[in-house]
Amino acid sequence: MTTSVRYRATLAYVGTQFHGWQIQRNADRTVQAVVEAALTRFAGAPVRVVAAGRTDAGVHADGQVVHFDLPEARGRQAIREGANTLLPGDVTLLEVVEARQSFHARRDAAWKEYVYRWSRAEVIAPRDSPFVAAISRACDPARMADAAEALPGTHDFGVFGVRLPAGAAPPTVRTLYGVAIEEVGEQIRAVFRGDGFLRGMVRSLCGVLADVGRGKAPPSRIAELLTTGERRLLAPKAPAKGLTLSRVHYGAG
Amino acid sequence: MTTSVRYRATLAYVGTQFHGWQIQRNADRTVQAVVEAALTRFAGAPVRVVAAGRTDAGVHADGQVVHFDLPEARGRQAIREGANTLLPGDVTLLEVVEARQSFHARRDAAWKEYVYRWSRAEVIAPRDSPFVAAISRACDPARMADAAEALPGTHDFGVFGVRLPAGAAPPTVRTLYGVAIEEVGEQIRAVFRGDGFLRGMVRSLCGVLADVGRGKAPPSRIAELLTTGERRLLAPKAPAKGLTLSRVHYGAG
Repeated sequence: MTTSVRYRATLAYVGTQFHGWQIQRNADRTVQAVVEAALTRFAGAPVRVVAAGRTDAGVHADGQVVHFDLPEARGRQAIREGANTLLPGDVTLLEVVEARQSFHARRDAAWKEYVYRWSRAEVIAPRDSPFVAAISRACDPARMADAAEALPGTHDFGVFGVRLPAGAAPPTVRTLYGVAIEEVGEQIRAVFRGDGFLRGMVRSLCGVLADVGRGKAPPSRIAELLTTGERRLLAPKAPAKGLTLSRVHYGAG
Repeated sequence: MTTSVRYRATLAYVGTQFHGWQIQRNADRTVQAVVEAALTRFAGAPVRVVAAGRTDAGVHADGQVVHFDLPEARGRQAIREGANTLLPGDVTLLEVVEARQSFHARRDAAWKEYVYRWSRAEVIAPRDSPFVAAISRACDPARMADAAEALPGTHDFGVFGVRLPAGAAPPTVRTLYGVAIEEVGEQIRAVFRGDGFLRGMVRSLCGVLADVGRGKAPPSRIAELLTTGERRLLAPKAPAKGLTLSRVHYGAG
């Protein structure tokens, strides 16, 4: 008989000083390691944390969702405040709620939303610099939006994922529910909603979108990549610092 | 005959890791020291920098203005890009222009604008945390606005400045041209425009405004402080991290 209690929590972090979400074999600082250490100290027993999205090094989160078990039930606010006291300033528990014992932050997610931010400012202020990638003022968001029209739907996104060792062939088909290109002041933002994202996929897509916006590739390039799967048509990946996991949505949860 | 050329520059910095603007006798990291080091290295000769406002430790700037002399004329963009390459990530030259030889960033300023930001969010995300002070959700901005009505005009603001040693009596009369209380999402902001600000004055005013907003002091408290000058009526100073020097305005310049 297990007496542990499962919780679901929403986390925000600034990814700049983290080597991504997932604990590494070496001593690199990761969000998972830091959150597990705080919850373990809070609970007085080892706590493991599972995230909806395993963000890469330098990627931020405004609404990462995780689940974890505590050996005994504790109040939502007590957990949140207790953990936040023990967490460093660049990662914060925004909300904690009780979950059913079978809740799984990654498997139960209906969709996730990532936002990529570029700044067209001639000089980027230090306040914004950790969260945006620089792009030329001449970048045309209308061209990017044209290119992005090919993305919604169910496709094999393998060409946009990190190259896998020969023999490894996990499924690379995903469904994007929507992609929007938005202008917000001097920023251009790309918002992606999908049932799942391959490792490196959003930054690779954004690299191509940036090339299209700057006129270095035609708006048909995204469709061409999806059809042909030819990696030689890719652009360099967009920098990690422009990417934020903004939201994870659950149906019933 | 001097051949040096004067420049005016706009600077932005995140104050978190700085012990304020002004160079200290000890080895503390200050914005002035870091900017002078970068410009000195760029120019190949010692460069001194004078700022419009000497911000305190932890205070940010979106639009600090400075002047400095270079031994010979250089292009605006060359100075900006050269200095930014040599500056750390938390301070950036936004713009550099040539100035007349007699231009003085502090003495010639017509007015300066400071913005103080509070967040009423139950939990503040790490992205916002360096730039806002926490305040109760029950804080009432209408009460703060009532209190702030006493501020515009020419007053002796001595009670809001840091306490000076006996005997020291620099003038403490300043003119505030406008004070606005704004609600922006979960934030409450106080915007101050004035011809000058005493050391510690904005944070002291904001401490009282926060007490008024939370119902711990009557809206008449600001007027009472200006009339009586009684320091026992003050509230604790608002935290430095909520304060930003947002703009410096020059008439002709």
